Amino acid sequence: MLKEIAEQPVVLEKTIKAETEKLGKIGKFLHNRDIDLVVLVARGSSDNAAQFGRYLIETICGIPVSLAAPSVYTLYKAKVNLSRALVVGVSQSGEGSDINSSLEAAKEYGAFTLGITNNAKSAITKVADETLLIHAGREKSVAATKTYTGQMLQLYLLANALANKSKRIDLEKIPHFANEALKLKEQVKDIAERYAFMENCVVVGRGLNYGNSFELALKLMETCYVVAERFSSADFFHGPLALVERRFPVLMFAPQGVTKTGNIDLLKRLKDLHADSFSITNDKEIAKLSSRSLMMPAEIDEFLSPIPFIVPAQLFAAYLSEAKGLNPDEPRSLSKVTKTI
Amino acid sequence: MLKEIAEQPVVLEKTIKAETEKLGKIGKFLHNRDIDLVVLVARGSSDNAAQFGRYLIETICGIPVSLAAPSVYTLYKAKVNLSRALVVGVSQSGEGSDINSSLEAAKEYGAFTLGITNNAKSAITKVADETLLIHAGREKSVAATKTYTGQMLQLYLLANALANKSKRIDLEKIPHFANEALKLKEQVKDIAERYAFMENCVVVGRGLNYGNSFELALKLMETCYVVAERFSSADFFHGPLALVERRFPVLMFAPQGVTKTGNIDLLKRLKDLHADSFSITNDKEIAKLSSRSLMMPAEIDEFLSPIPFIVPAQLFAAYLSEAKGLNPDEPRSLSKVTKTI
Repeated sequence: MLKEIAEQPVVLEKTIKAETEKLGKIGKFLHNRDIDLVVLVARGSSDNAAQFGRYLIETICGIPVSLAAPSVYTLYKAKVNLSRALVVGVSQSGEGSDINSSLEAAKEYGAFTLGITNNAKSAITKVADETLLIHAGREKSVAATKTYTGQMLQLYLLANALANKSKRIDLEKIPHFANEALKLKEQVKDIAERYAFMENCVVVGRGLNYGNSFELALKLMETCYVVAERFSSADFFHGPLALVERRFPVLMFAPQGVTKTGNIDLLKRLKDLHADSFSITNDKEIAKLSSRSLMMPAEIDEFLSPIPFIVPAQLFAAYLSEAKGLNPDEPRSLSKVTKTI
Repeated sequence: MLKEIAEQPVVLEKTIKAETEKLGKIGKFLHNRDIDLVVLVARGSSDNAAQFGRYLIETICGIPVSLAAPSVYTLYKAKVNLSRALVVGVSQSGEGSDINSSLEAAKEYGAFTLGITNNAKSAITKVADETLLIHAGREKSVAATKTYTGQMLQLYLLANALANKSKRIDLEKIPHFANEALKLKEQVKDIAERYAFMENCVVVGRGLNYGNSFELALKLMETCYVVAERFSSADFFHGPLALVERRFPVLMFAPQGVTKTGNIDLLKRLKDLHADSFSITNDKEIAKLSSRSLMMPAEIDEFLSPIPFIVPAQLFAAYLSEAKGLNPDEPRSLSKVTKTI
């Protein structure tokens, strides 16, 4: 897992180089179709990448996005009108049978379909109209890391392809920022030691970093057996706040940008409750209000933050697993490919 | 909270009587518009009701549904094309400022808007094109119960209004089944005692009962301070299963119907892991595979199960709170109306 975390800047760079042209063509094709809905179909880590994609696509493309409920297609056999929809399956292995069945159904109901996968020979490439490849090489660790950020990158490329020129995001610096994030390694290792006995926690994030809160929570469940709740910092005030008692750990993605005010309100509230807050941030005010924080480069714009900000979180999960005497590469009860029906 | 749980059959009956005609008219009006997307905007318990609504509407109406991310409108100020969308705000109090701002934005971007609320004089009624009222009377408890099932009922009425005649669901028996569920009270009380020292757990459900798993988890967080994860039984195999050790508590909504096979697979797996499974079911096979179960009437069809099945879960949260020496009506740190910006 640590090795694959470190590979991310290279994977990201490779994927940008190899896929940008293709996405440009797909973009032109899609502009000529009357797409008024994007549906993202995924499970597990891929679904967390999709969660990020929904904020990105709605915000820069102005097209509404739905995160699909695969069982609507696979179990309830619903005939959903998708004639003006672009349906995107996201699957590391490309073998998730419910993802593929949903794509098949979507095609039948009129949608244009894309598959985002790390496996050029997988079943999803046969089902989808077009395939977008992550160039991550084989991912051996059960806990997805480089394929998660690779999927996020493909969603950036797709959003850029669908967006008007003026709204497009310059992705070039993302691999560099991911590399900067890797330099926090020793600092993350030290902080992880402190949480060796943490049994449960809440992870919060909002907007573009909401998916990251799901992803860190999932990593903590998979590799550390920590019961990790995930919430938007907005939803957190609706009920879950009652969980917080003295020293309760709250982990937070808090970049500069539009989510800052809400995150500051939450941090103040957590301080009053004597909670233990740990933030990944590039904002000094946020860092000051947090019990602990990891400082990311200030120059990272919020729209470029999701990929670099997950990197120290992945490191945290891997080192916390070790601090707990576990092996992050051997989570109990799990297998790499999950086939749901 | 217990008093309001008991009021539900009456509230449901009242709401069916008072609102069916209005929904019929709205249905006719919407059939003439070219609606190809329903967007549900909500937070907290209302969002859990919306989660149920998304499965119901996609399945019986064949219209894709998106659960909105309010911050796309409120923080990122995105201009999303909603010219063919029906946007429905769901809010008990009708005063959730981010819900109302999202509805305002949606109207500006071309959507027809509805508000589902329990407060006929609230702000949402001024924002939305039409209001659908829950006839629950004032809800005093911070933990929503009767307004949650009232919102679900309104979503049934809305789905029926949008669906073709042959797909409509006969709702008449729902109040009766909710009343039958209340009769499990003493049995629930006994079971709750057994979980007095539970500190964390996972709640699973799938399809039409997926929203209920979120709702029970939220109730457990609010009233019992239990760190309760919520998952679809399908997603549970993607990572969270690693959490499960001997005696780990997994609570499950498992009615008869299309989700049965998946739930049985999960229960078998949990048995192998010596987990503690507690299911709310009306299926004998499910009950037999569970460590503990609450038996609901066998005649409840899966499509009518979500409302009656949440009733014993609400009772469980209230009694567990008491068993823990807490007061379910006084959750720490929370207030009834949450205003998010």
